[in-house]
Amino acid sequence: MKYGLVGFSGKMGKEIIEVFSEYCHQLVAKFDRTHREVQEKPDIILDFSSPEALKETVELSKKFLCPAVIGTTNLKEQDISMLNELSALVPVVYSSNFSVGINVIKNILESFKLEFSEWDIEIIEFHHRKKKDAPSGTALFLSESLGNVPIHSIRAGGIFGDHKILFANEGEVIELSHRAMSRKIFALGALKAAEFAISTKASFYTFRDVLSKKR
Amino acid sequence: MKYGLVGFSGKMGKEIIEVFSEYCHQLVAKFDRTHREVQEKPDIILDFSSPEALKETVELSKKFLCPAVIGTTNLKEQDISMLNELSALVPVVYSSNFSVGINVIKNILESFKLEFSEWDIEIIEFHHRKKKDAPSGTALFLSESLGNVPIHSIRAGGIFGDHKILFANEGEVIELSHRAMSRKIFALGALKAAEFAISTKASFYTFRDVLSKKR
Amino acid sequence: MKYGLVGFSGKMGKEIIEVFSEYCHQLVAKFDRTHREVQEKPDIILDFSSPEALKETVELSKKFLCPAVIGTTNLKEQDISMLNELSALVPVVYSSNFSVGINVIKNILESFKLEFSEWDIEIIEFHHRKKKDAPSGTALFLSESLGNVPIHSIRAGGIFGDHKILFANEGEVIELSHRAMSRKIFALGALKAAEFAISTKASFYTFRDVLSKKR
Amino acid sequence: MKYGLVGFSGKMGKEIIEVFSEYCHQLVAKFDRTHREVQEKPDIILDFSSPEALKETVELSKKFLCPAVIGTTNLKEQDISMLNELSALVPVVYSSNFSVGINVIKNILESFKLEFSEWDIEIIEFHHRKKKDAPSGTALFLSESLGNVPIHSIRAGGIFGDHKILFANEGEVIELSHRAMSRKIFALGALKAAEFAISTKASFYTFRDVLSKKR
Repeated sequence: MKYGLVGFSGKMGKEIIEVFSEYCHQLVAKFDRTHREVQEKPDIILDFSSPEALKETVELSKKFLCPAVIGTTNLKEQDISMLNELSALVPVVYSSNFSVGINVIKNILESFKLEFSEWDIEIIEFHHRKKKDAPSGTALFLSESLGNVPIHSIRAGGIFGDHKILFANEGEVIELSHRAMSRKIFALGALKAAEFAISTKASFYTFRDVLSKKR
Repeated sequence: MKYGLVGFSGKMGKEIIEVFSEYCHQLVAKFDRTHREVQEKPDIILDFSSPEALKETVELSKKFLCPAVIGTTNLKEQDISMLNELSALVPVVYSSNFSVGINVIKNILESFKLEFSEWDIEIIEFHHRKKKDAPSGTALFLSESLGNVPIHSIRAGGIFGDHKILFANEGEVIELSHRAMSRKIFALGALKAAEFAISTKASFYTFRDVLSKKR
Repeated sequence: MKYGLVGFSGKMGKEIIEVFSEYCHQLVAKFDRTHREVQEKPDIILDFSSPEALKETVELSKKFLCPAVIGTTNLKEQDISMLNELSALVPVVYSSNFSVGINVIKNILESFKLEFSEWDIEIIEFHHRKKKDAPSGTALFLSESLGNVPIHSIRAGGIFGDHKILFANEGEVIELSHRAMSRKIFALGALKAAEFAISTKASFYTFRDVLSKKR
Repeated sequence: MKYGLVGFSGKMGKEIIEVFSEYCHQLVAKFDRTHREVQEKPDIILDFSSPEALKETVELSKKFLCPAVIGTTNLKEQDISMLNELSALVPVVYSSNFSVGINVIKNILESFKLEFSEWDIEIIEFHHRKKKDAPSGTALFLSESLGNVPIHSIRAGGIFGDHKILFANEGEVIELSHRAMSRKIFALGALKAAEFAISTKASFYTFRDVLSKKR
């Protein structure tokens, strides 16, 4: 496929380029804060950058009438509304986490929240020291399923992203944890989402929809 | 209730006596290798001791026509048959683990085994150095749900019982772990099972049946 | 030995009574908020209760001219001064943690702080939901050796006390963690401290002094 | 510096090339099973490949009279002898683990083995499913310091390399663990070793010598 990429020069941008080129997809339009370049009409547009870029991403998607895959974290309510609106025209996949594992954990939490209703629950998330937002979008995403439990954010070294959910009662402790070993898993998730988006009809999707449709 | 206890002088036996007396239940019959004493007909008989004791437990249950709660690990097929037979006469609750948490984990594994079909899975279990059997009954119980994955057994110090299930793919690691903080949780589980058993009809039950009926 | 105990009816008080009686020591004086009873002159006085009790403990130690073992956490500077003063008259052992393991970890941190000078360091501590103070005295005790690193406090279920120290650089993570499996270890530590205190000369000691002298 | 690399086409080989080129060092001689190419005399030769390659590496080092940095695991006694012999002519740095963190842990274990003499100790190591040797060279390296404790090897997914040392007594558990987040840390260690080797005199060194001399 031919794809456009917002935030092509950032860390996630580079990772997406590497993974997409492994699968022979072509980068035909690229954008960042200081640079915009369109060689050809893209089949899809991806944005894993920052909230400030979103408005332009939405405009590009409208202009080219192509689906959008959005992995930006820390979006506000009005940003989500903007994506919802866009999804009337084209398929939009939005998620704060594009890893398969985190989405399996999300499903476990939703299926088992009743079983854990009498347990104390706390989330602890670990990310590299340069991460700007805290708590992480993923921690908030997981916390929602549990009725907004407390989140503890640790920023240290180069940790890609660890999330632990701790459940404790008087005599037992259960831990459910996820560790990303590289940024590549998110780029692979973005690819799955892109493949899904270009072959479906206009609507608003999450990465979980992508995973459940794929099966 | 009035209860009989096989293995009353062992570690789990003492724990059961402590918890049951907190709830004002009366120990009316007690047995171990060298001692047998029946003061009154019990309403239920419990056995969390060793496989060798099982035959007598079954006979006691038949004699008093009272339900049996069995938490002995390391039973053989013929032992299970014996319990199955007994369950035609009286309610029998048998499980290799009477903790609420382990049974929640068992349910998670059964519900999500398809999601994990492409992940490598390994179980690691940690118990005190005096534990005789390895792997633990609980590890085997969890492993079954996953198609018998490899189990690593670690015996050290006074660890009551930790179980970890590790799922790994190329870029992610998920861990689901359980830690028992004392033997008391198993005695509390035995109490739940006993309360269930004396108010139900003759059949073979597991601790999961107890938990799901209770809800 | 004959011992006096301040806070005899609390959780740590009961644990101390159990361990000391295993070793045939006699409780001859006991105190709590509503009760004071002296049967005989004690050889030593122990206090693992709360800061409010300390003043009376110090007075008792002076009155009986017997050593004091203090495990109360959350003491203020003026409390420490009071203990320092007392230590001119009798041996005083004061520590915020009487476990062997925590003190080994303290020694590791002090010996290796230079090696970790370029790593990001964070402490995470887990305790039962009823614990009143946060961060724990032990976390503060460990943090001091590292130049006061950030501490994250998690309160959940019945966790006795877990402490993790996380070290991260760009490509590696080291974790050093300690888990107490019961309150008994602290009572065993109190016993070691008491045995040490009754056979030494008046001075101020920590539990680390007890451990290093014992070897 | 100008360097020669044995095993240039393997995973570690590629990582070394990437890191060394970041620091503007020049690859002037490269070797693998099917290819050998020498453009210029190297200042140093590195080998992080497999035991079968070692003989040629030693010959190259003799021929060019340049230092050797060896990170191959699973070497036999006679291989080590060969390196010892070589070290009479040129500086040789040999280690089964070139990460800073593992070497700090090694130092901790050696300094504190007496404190842990009454604890049960077990090592658990986790590596990717394609790793050929088990236990890992690093686990053996750590185990030696503790009098050869049991090692449990888990092979799953794409885990780069996790090592845990578990210490347990009757009431406490201490864990000391290390996680490599990428192969890059080993290549950075190889660079440190190479810089050290080209500026020192002929002798046999370990990576720990490199780290302690650097300080």
